[in-house]
Amino acid sequence: MNQAVERGTLFVISAPSGAGKTSLVAAMLRNDEKLGVSVSHTTRPMREGEQDGVNYHFVSRDAFEAMIGQGDFLEHADVFGNYYGTSHSWVRDTLAGGQDVILEIDWQGAEQVRRLMPECVGIFIVPPSPEVLRERLVGRGTDKPEVVERRLAEAAEECRHALEFDYLVVNDQFEVALADLLAIVRSQRLRVAVQQDRHGALLAGLSR
Amino acid sequence: MNQAVERGTLFVISAPSGAGKTSLVAAMLRNDEKLGVSVSHTTRPMREGEQDGVNYHFVSRDAFEAMIGQGDFLEHADVFGNYYGTSHSWVRDTLAGGQDVILEIDWQGAEQVRRLMPECVGIFIVPPSPEVLRERLVGRGTDKPEVVERRLAEAAEECRHALEFDYLVVNDQFEVALADLLAIVRSQRLRVAVQQDRHGALLAGLSR
Repeated sequence: MNQAVERGTLFVISAPSGAGKTSLVAAMLRNDEKLGVSVSHTTRPMREGEQDGVNYHFVSRDAFEAMIGQGDFLEHADVFGNYYGTSHSWVRDTLAGGQDVILEIDWQGAEQVRRLMPECVGIFIVPPSPEVLRERLVGRGTDKPEVVERRLAEAAEECRHALEFDYLVVNDQFEVALADLLAIVRSQRLRVAVQQDRHGALLAGLSR
Repeated sequence: MNQAVERGTLFVISAPSGAGKTSLVAAMLRNDEKLGVSVSHTTRPMREGEQDGVNYHFVSRDAFEAMIGQGDFLEHADVFGNYYGTSHSWVRDTLAGGQDVILEIDWQGAEQVRRLMPECVGIFIVPPSPEVLRERLVGRGTDKPEVVERRLAEAAEECRHALEFDYLVVNDQFEVALADLLAIVRSQRLRVAVQQDRHGALLAGLSR
């Protein structure tokens, strides 16, 4: 990849369902205007209230498969017969414009992204205890036992990949976890490699 | 080194004189109770108001040289005929106790520390412009020109090593720079390697 033009940082955020990832990412976006979220491509039909280009880029199966053929996906998956994927060129262009990008994906997507963009920063969010996770996934008890069991098995599988990420945030108190996430984002912008781009002239002036 | 027991993180902070490092580090210590600062050993005489073990560990030249011989210094230097050094065993024991440690040293000391503890986190602080640096180093204009010139040359030399550090913080507004430094410290505690120690049981429980 052309690292010289990639000024923003790509944050790959994963978590088992029930960890509070979606609310935390929404709060991150509200708190940090230099953060953007990647909008996925999908072949699933648009639902009421959704907007093309906002919730998803809605494309046909043919168009999606053509993009796969052209290698335009940073990661993609087939979920219950519908494709979902992240456009590599969109992410690259956004980062090149100096914006940081959050990608909310599962561990398998994260693995694909890591292979193509090893400089991405991986964050894994976990709930504070197995009991809390169980409570959240069991929900109001109206789901079939086998549905609940599958959900629990998927969450456990997701957590088995936590150590493949760079950072681990425990979502015990929402505000603390949010501050943790914002500190990770802030610190990434202070890395010498990033600052060298931003403050090259200052450093040259100070070293003279 | 025995990495398994080194739970805290060693932060090596360097800056040219006039960057505001000392005030920033003092503010970091006030804001974060899990942070400690390394107390150096020195052979220079104790000054009025100083306390052994607080400002410095005051030792004799013979004792200092014996410590050098035993390889007990993470870094040391001879400044105008007085020795100054950081005890490796003190730093190691403090980190093993789970505390984070700040070391305020120059680029040469930082280089020595990096060689012995490559897992340390280096932060370089710079003033917002060469003009501000010059103003601060020239001071009230009561110093001899050659003293001022030497100070400026030393600051420039220090800045030429900024890119050897992991993070670069520009001290333009004090509160912003302080928040930057605290975010770096906070984010280090969220790294997977550190969190794995702290939350190993949680991760095992979630993955089951």
